[in-house]
This record gives sequence, C-alpha cells and structure tokens, in this order.
Amino acid sequence: MATGRRFWGWGREEDALSAAEQRALAARVAPLVGDSDLRPVPAPTRDEIELPSPRLTPPSSMAGWFSTDPEDRAGHTYGKSFRDLVRALERNWRRPPDCVVRPPDESGVEALLEWASEVGAIVIPYGGGSSVVGGVEVPADDDRPVMSCDLVHLSRVLEVDHLSRAARIEAGTLGPALEDQLRPYGLTLRHFPQSFEFSSLGGWLATRSAGHFATLATHIDDAVESIRAVTPAGITATRRLPGSGAGPSPDRLLLGSEGILGIITEAWVRLQARPRWRASGVGRFSTFDSAVTAVRKLGQSGLWPANCRLLDATEALISGSGDGSAHLVLLGFESADHPVDEALARAAEIVGESGGTIPSPMEAAPSTADAGGARGADPDGPGIGEHPDASTRWRASFLRAPYFRDELVRMGLVSETFETAITWDRFDIFVAEIRAACADALRSAGAWPAVISCRLTHIYPDGAAPYFTVLATGHPTDRLGQWAEIKSAVTEAIENGGGTVTHHHAVGRDHRPGYDRQRPDLFAAQLRAAKHVVDPSALLNPGVLIDP
Amino acid sequence: MATGRRFWGWGREEDALSAAEQRALAARVAPLVGDSDLRPVPAPTRDEIELPSPRLTPPSSMAGWFSTDPEDRAGHTYGKSFRDLVRALERNWRRPPDCVVRPPDESGVEALLEWASEVGAIVIPYGGGSSVVGGVEVPADDDRPVMSCDLVHLSRVLEVDHLSRAARIEAGTLGPALEDQLRPYGLTLRHFPQSFEFSSLGGWLATRSAGHFATLATHIDDAVESIRAVTPAGITATRRLPGSGAGPSPDRLLLGSEGILGIITEAWVRLQARPRWRASGVGRFSTFDSAVTAVRKLGQSGLWPANCRLLDATEALISGSGDGSAHLVLLGFESADHPVDEALARAAEIVGESGGTIPSPMEAAPSTADAGGARGADPDGPGIGEHPDASTRWRASFLRAPYFRDELVRMGLVSETFETAITWDRFDIFVAEIRAACADALRSAGAWPAVISCRLTHIYPDGAAPYFTVLATGHPTDRLGQWAEIKSAVTEAIENGGGTVTHHHAVGRDHRPGYDRQRPDLFAAQLRAAKHVVDPSALLNPGVLIDP
Repeated sequence: MATGRRFWGWGREEDALSAAEQRALAARVAPLVGDSDLRPVPAPTRDEIELPSPRLTPPSSMAGWFSTDPEDRAGHTYGKSFRDLVRALERNWRRPPDCVVRPPDESGVEALLEWASEVGAIVIPYGGGSSVVGGVEVPADDDRPVMSCDLVHLSRVLEVDHLSRAARIEAGTLGPALEDQLRPYGLTLRHFPQSFEFSSLGGWLATRSAGHFATLATHIDDAVESIRAVTPAGITATRRLPGSGAGPSPDRLLLGSEGILGIITEAWVRLQARPRWRASGVGRFSTFDSAVTAVRKLGQSGLWPANCRLLDATEALISGSGDGSAHLVLLGFESADHPVDEALARAAEIVGESGGTIPSPMEAAPSTADAGGARGADPDGPGIGEHPDASTRWRASFLRAPYFRDELVRMGLVSETFETAITWDRFDIFVAEIRAACADALRSAGAWPAVISCRLTHIYPDGAAPYFTVLATGHPTDRLGQWAEIKSAVTEAIENGGGTVTHHHAVGRDHRPGYDRQRPDLFAAQLRAAKHVVDPSALLNPGVLIDP
Repeated sequence: MATGRRFWGWGREEDALSAAEQRALAARVAPLVGDSDLRPVPAPTRDEIELPSPRLTPPSSMAGWFSTDPEDRAGHTYGKSFRDLVRALERNWRRPPDCVVRPPDESGVEALLEWASEVGAIVIPYGGGSSVVGGVEVPADDDRPVMSCDLVHLSRVLEVDHLSRAARIEAGTLGPALEDQLRPYGLTLRHFPQSFEFSSLGGWLATRSAGHFATLATHIDDAVESIRAVTPAGITATRRLPGSGAGPSPDRLLLGSEGILGIITEAWVRLQARPRWRASGVGRFSTFDSAVTAVRKLGQSGLWPANCRLLDATEALISGSGDGSAHLVLLGFESADHPVDEALARAAEIVGESGGTIPSPMEAAPSTADAGGARGADPDGPGIGEHPDASTRWRASFLRAPYFRDELVRMGLVSETFETAITWDRFDIFVAEIRAACADALRSAGAWPAVISCRLTHIYPDGAAPYFTVLATGHPTDRLGQWAEIKSAVTEAIENGGGTVTHHHAVGRDHRPGYDRQRPDLFAAQLRAAKHVVDPSALLNPGVLIDP
C-alpha cells in the first residue's frame, strides 16, 4: 500500500528538509555540539531491507487485508523515537511484525482478533505509528507470531452532532483528515500534538495525548464522551454522556491503556467552534526563574490562555524562535465567541509584574477565516510564515521538528527529548536535578559537549510539564548504548524528584522501568486483572504498561 | 459521641425549620399537591429506637473506637434519601450496623480492616453520611456482621502547598472544617455540593461529587492530584502530579469507587485563591426552551461562568427564587485575578440573543472579604440574606433544602429528586420523556396531583445535567411502594433516553438496576476483578456498584 510515507523515518520524502535547509541546520548546530563536520548518512533504501520470513498465512476471508511487503513490514517495525531511527539507519529490522493487517472496518478488527486468538498471534494496534516510547514494536522476549493491526481504513467522521458540538469518529483517522472532515461544519477538535500529521484519534486516546491547549483541556481525555473498543472477549462501548458520576469512569480505564485492553475503534469527542478572535504575544525574560514565575501566575490566573509555552533561551535559539538572548513565553488567546484582547492585556500585565516585557503584543484582527492550512496544521493563529513573529516561527519549527530531528540523527548526533510534569513547589529543584543528571550522563557516555534545553509545554494551576531536548555528538557505533545510559539517568532523576515518567509521550516499553516504580503496585495488579478479563491470552500489545 | 446531629434526618436540630417556617412551607406547598392539611408527624426520639443486638466485640486495642450506642447505630443505619427518612420515621432500624467504629487515624483504618478480615465482618465507609442512594446502608442479603467505619477523626488539613495552591487533606474532613482550615491561607477548594455541611472530602471523591462550579471543573475528579486508600490488601497511594499521561489514571479508578475498592484516607487536592471579583445576574425567560438555548450558548461560549443554573418557573416558585411567572437563569462570575464585568456583560448579551432579559445585573464590588459564613456555606457571592435578589434567595434555599425536604416528608409527602445528564441533541425530547414517565408513574402510584419541577445544575459545552424535583401527597402507609414505582419508571426513562443513571448522586444500592444496564458488561467484569485484587473477601461495602 503506497502511503507515500518513509518506512525508516518521519513523514513524507517530499516534506523533508531541502539541501539548503540541511546545510543551515548543520551550520546552526555544529558549534553547539563541537563538531564542525555534520553530514547526514544516506537513508536506507527499499532494497536494503532484510527481514525474517513471515510466519503467518491469513485465512482467505482476510487475505486482502494482509501485507507482507518488506517495506510495509519494515515501516511497522518501529515507532519514531531516536532509538527507532538509529535502528532503521543501521538497517536493523531483525524483529519486524510478520505481517501488516489493515481491517476494512470494526467488524474486520473483530474478525482479526478472533483469528489471532485461534492461531495464538500477538496483535499490535497501529494508528499513525508515531510512538516514541516503543509502543508499537514487537516485544523482544515473546516468540509468538505478530500482526501489526493498522487502522488506516477506519478513517471517517461517522456522525456530527452540531448542537452538542461533538462527533463520532473512527479511531484510525489521522489529524489532518479529522480536521478536514470537521471543517465544513465549522467545527474543530483543536487537538494538535507535535505528531498531528501522522497520529490518529485512537492513538491519542490510547496514549492520553496532550495537544494544542497549554491550559484547561490539555489532554485528549477531557474531550471524550464515549469510546468503543474491540477486545478478544468482545466489543465494549460506553454511553455517550456530557458528564457522569456513575461509578469509576469506564472511559478512563481505556484512556492510556496503550492497546493492552482493547483496540479502540471509534469515539464520540467534544469539538469546538472554530476560533474567530485571537490575540497573541511573546514575553521576554532575562532569567528563567522569572519566566517560570510568569507562567505559574498565568496558569493560576483563570485567564486560560490557549497557548502558554515557555522556551528557555537555548530552546528559543535552537528552534529559531529567538537569538538565545532571552527566555520567551509564547502567549495566545482564542475564542469563537468574544474578543480576547482584554485577556491578553491582563496576561501582559502578569508578564510585566513577573519581570518580563512584551515588546509588541500581536493582536490578530477578528476573523472568520479558516485557520487550518492544507494539512490543518496551524494550531492557533494565522498561517505559518505569514507573521514573522517569534510565536509563529516557533510554531512552524514545532510542527516540522520531527523532520529536523531525523536529519540530526542522520548527522550522527544523539538527539533526544524527555518530558514530565511536576508541581510548582518542587519545580525549581526538580528541573535543576534533571539538567544535572542529564549532563552527568552525557559526560559519562562520552556525548559531550552537549546542549540541554528546556521548554514548558503545558501549564497547570498546580504545576507544569517541562520538556527537555538534548543534542550531542554521538558515538560512531554505539549511540544506542549512550542513549540507554542517558535515558536511564534522566528517568531515575524524574522518578526520584517526584515527577511523572511521562506527561504525554506514553509509557510503551521504553518507560516501563520508571512507570513500574511510579504506579502503585496494587493498581498494577488491578490492571493485570482487568486485562485478563478482556484478553486472557495476552494477545494485545504484550509488554506495554505491564507484563501480562 | 455527641455530634449534635439528628440520628433520623438531616443536620442539627437547632438549624431545622422554625414553627413559623413550617407553617409558611405548608401554606406554599399545600395548593400544589391538593392537600390542605399538611402537618408534620413527630420525629423519632432516642427512646423509640429498637435495634437487634450487636454481633461484634472489638479487640481491646480498638475498644475505644467502637460504639454500640443505639442512637449512634440508628444514625448510621441509613443515608439521607427520601426512602431513608421514611424508614426512620417508621421507626424501622431493623438492619443497623452492629457497631460504629471511629478509627483515630489511617493506621487505625488499617488495623480495623485487618481485624475485619479476621472476623469476616463487612466494613461500610462512612464520611458525612449524606448518601441519597443507599450507599452507606447494610446490605439486605448478607448476613455477616457489619461495621460502619466513621472517618470523623480523619479531619485535618495535613499540609498546604501555597505555591501550587494545593493541600493534603484527610478524607473525613467535612466541608465547613475543610474551608475553615484553608481560609487562613487565603485558599479555598470551592467545592460546594448541596450536602456541603455534612459531607466529607473522602465521600466526595468516592462518589464523584459535583459541586459549586456549573462549568469547567464541575466534578471533584478534576481537583485531584493524588489519593491514598487503605484496602484489605494494603495501602495504595498515587503520585502527586499536576498532570500525567502514564497509563490509565489510578486515581480515576478510585474516584467513584464508592468504598468498594478501598477506604480513602487522604488526598492532595487543587485549591484556588479566594475570589476577589464577582458579578452576577438573573436572566428571565418566558419559555423553558429559550432558557435552555441560553444556557447551551453560555456553556459553549468559553466564558466559563462559576454559576449557570436554570430553574424552571415551578422550581423558581418552590425554592422561593421567583413567583413562578418566569424561568430563571442564575449567572455568576468570579475571579481572584481580574474583574469579571466584561464576562457578565457578554453573558447578558447571550441571554438577550436567546430571548431572555436581565433586568438588573448585580455587579459585586471588588472585594477581598471572606465569602464564607460561619459554616463557610456561601458558594459565590455575598453572605446569604444580604442581597435580596433571586440568585441569593435561591442559593439560601439550596443550602437549607435538606431541612425543608425533611419537613415535607414529615408532612406525609412524597418528596424526591432525580438527576441525570444528557447531550444537547437529545435534551428536549429526553426531558419531556422523563417528565411524562414521572407523571404517569405518580398517577399510577396514586400520588396525584403532583408537582414536577426541573432545574439544570451543571452546564457542559455538549450537554447539561437536568435535576427534577417531585412533590406529591403520599399514601398514608405505603410511600415506599409509591417511591419504588416512581423511581423505577424514571430510571427506565433515563436509561432508554440515553442519560446517565446519576450525574452526581452516585450509584449506591438504589441506582444499581439502571447502572447495571448503563455500564459495559466487560467493564463490570473488570471492576469485579479489580475489587478481587484488593478485597478478595468482599468486606468493603458489598452490593454497592457491583455484586462482589
């Protein structure tokens, strides 16, 4: 099946960096990592793919859904993490799924699970394949045959309830297709994770994705009215409700279940009218601490900005949003109902009270224009590139970041991110501890000089989600060893400091060590018991979240 | 233990209706139910209590915590529903707990559960005892001895994190004590369910209580950073976090668990600065439909009013908020950070656009004064009685309503409420169906003439929570039979119409039939499995939510 997507890395070949962009990137990063000769290694080609033979032959009724095409299997072997990319660049596809299966609809998913039960095959749900935590790969310690269940054909908005502003949407629908189908109704989900273009509604639900909004409904969890999922024990479906107090929420057990409790096939989700009023501005701060104070106060103000991101000076520099001379707070307000200038004005006051400046708040004119570009990628303002302000430059960089990351990895760098969340009382020490642990591990792993930058992606009244980016020259033949050392040290620092092992990247297999320490043991036992009810043979994504 | 509370009904004797209030209530209600002679029957007295002998003798280490005092046992036999009150007025305490146990602290709860495991006794967690769904009563079909575990001594705010605006609070803390302990810090939980005065943090968490706020964080769920609970299998405690995406939320499994998965002992909850700016107004509508349109638009506006309640004309009349000539929308905005006049002005526009009028929006002056009265009972404005506007009159009536309900029941009436939630697309038909089903059942049960009023207690962008109040003359000797008939009919209408069996009253034992149909069967099996992990002998509140 020709999806036009690169089997070894992010996105589509035609959207990747141009040669000029590659050179500019290399020139910008080289001095930071002390390597003057950054050149990308060649990407793998189809004829370099070597795979073990598939061990599954589908029944004739499903034959049309099955693919054992090498590029297909290689493309479904990994997610999109640094580790995944390095393995692909090493031409290592030693543990691919035996086949990729694309059921035509929910009944197809049911039939597939029945057949998987019969033949004892593992089924790994696959939405957009953007996992960065080992969430879609074949478990290393399980010798059963494996199917990657790609939900690409479950891609429709099935029903729109305009009065309630809600829609019933199939789980395989990728971000742009979802917004495209809602646009004619004047509605939008406005959920824009960085993976937006190549991630699906079902994936967002299964991993508790965090999206566009920096405050209020940050996680997709809060957009859910009801969920349907197929399990080996049958279909489970919750009642569509705007709110309820009837026992523990069944939706909340599926949210974050990462494919181990069922394959989500559709959901009713809450939408919004497309914003008509917008206002944005960028606060500049000479110290990181004062910028943190500002976003804390903004988060506690009840102004509920749609965008409220802090970029430290290094992050601003790397992303092209600033020149590295100041820490930036990107602020955006939006509404479909009323002007938001007063909210921005009060936010600017808070920035000022905290020691920052907003040189020139950009107030977008009232507009009914569609905010989305061809791929619906613009979260909260005019189209990318139309306004050369820092906020817009940062956003453009944000959404294309995975392409840049791929290039950096091809240039031999260690390029990784770590994200977490922590309450304000421990914030300062926690961030310092993580920076220190990360720097120590980089040195110890021989990945030095390195750059460690930090941004705050989501702001809560009681805390924030810090997100660290690391860039360093990698070992020519052992970047995965370096990665493991750094990842382990940072995970331990997060764990010891009281943060979450993941704010929005999910647990998968990569975060298991930290997750196993973070979540209560009795809850883990309850999760195993809940899994056994719906998946007694542990067919579904084994090894993710728990050992079945 | 002298708590000063009435063992047979709501609250304290000294706060009950005066003789003059009784007469005024009777005069107001009599014409509505076609009964000219409404006089309250005498309340039960302590010497009328007849109980079976207690079957438990505590070990000496716990002897000081145990009470077999008849008034204590009678007072812990029921919650505070219509059915509970009728049974108490019938002097029916045939199935009381064998004893009331008041552990001094969390270790005491642990010791109690260990002993309960040894002797095979049922433990019913008891916070404020305000359940209206049979959530704290002895199961009818279980002959094991029963302890009511009253958490009254777990009543402290243990820790306040001012920077994050959060506090660690013991589960038995009742609403007023909780706010009293937070007030010196300038902080407030601002969770004001109608039961506020006699309900506890642990009870709110266990039942997914809905409180003060009509929009945004309506349920206590959203205030939770972490929870600790004692189970027969040990203590379970979640990590305190402002947000997380690490697997299904362990907190969300405890939220709404109604005592079957553990006894919640404490939680970190999110607080707010006490509001300084307030503005409120009352919209008047000649038709219910136009008032519904207004609250829908308000709920979808992003203005997030703190209060946005619709009272139909009858509800306005009964509650004393209006004269019955108009449907009312009570609107309130509040902020600790900025003026809210502009928000109220836009809300007034929406009221006008929907066909309503706001004769005189009441704009509260900026204020730093403490909003709480002696019992901290004022949700969102000046003290009760200070402002004779409809909004304030309604609020005063709201918080004293349980006392009035008790009087109506003593006068021989059927006085019951039903609450649910539904999306907007089905709202009109749904409300009509419930009204019709309720009226049919009242007629069929011989409880006619009757009054059925409706208010909307919480407004979501995608729907609302309708709350019905029924008043009718009851059968002299079979009000519980009438209640069962009406309850069953309304529950069936809610079920068939697609609503939730409960928006914020919880499931308990009374809502089991509807709940059993509403929640997915596989989820019920998962809940049973999760219970078995922590409570293999089904000691904890058996019969609530599921059959163990």
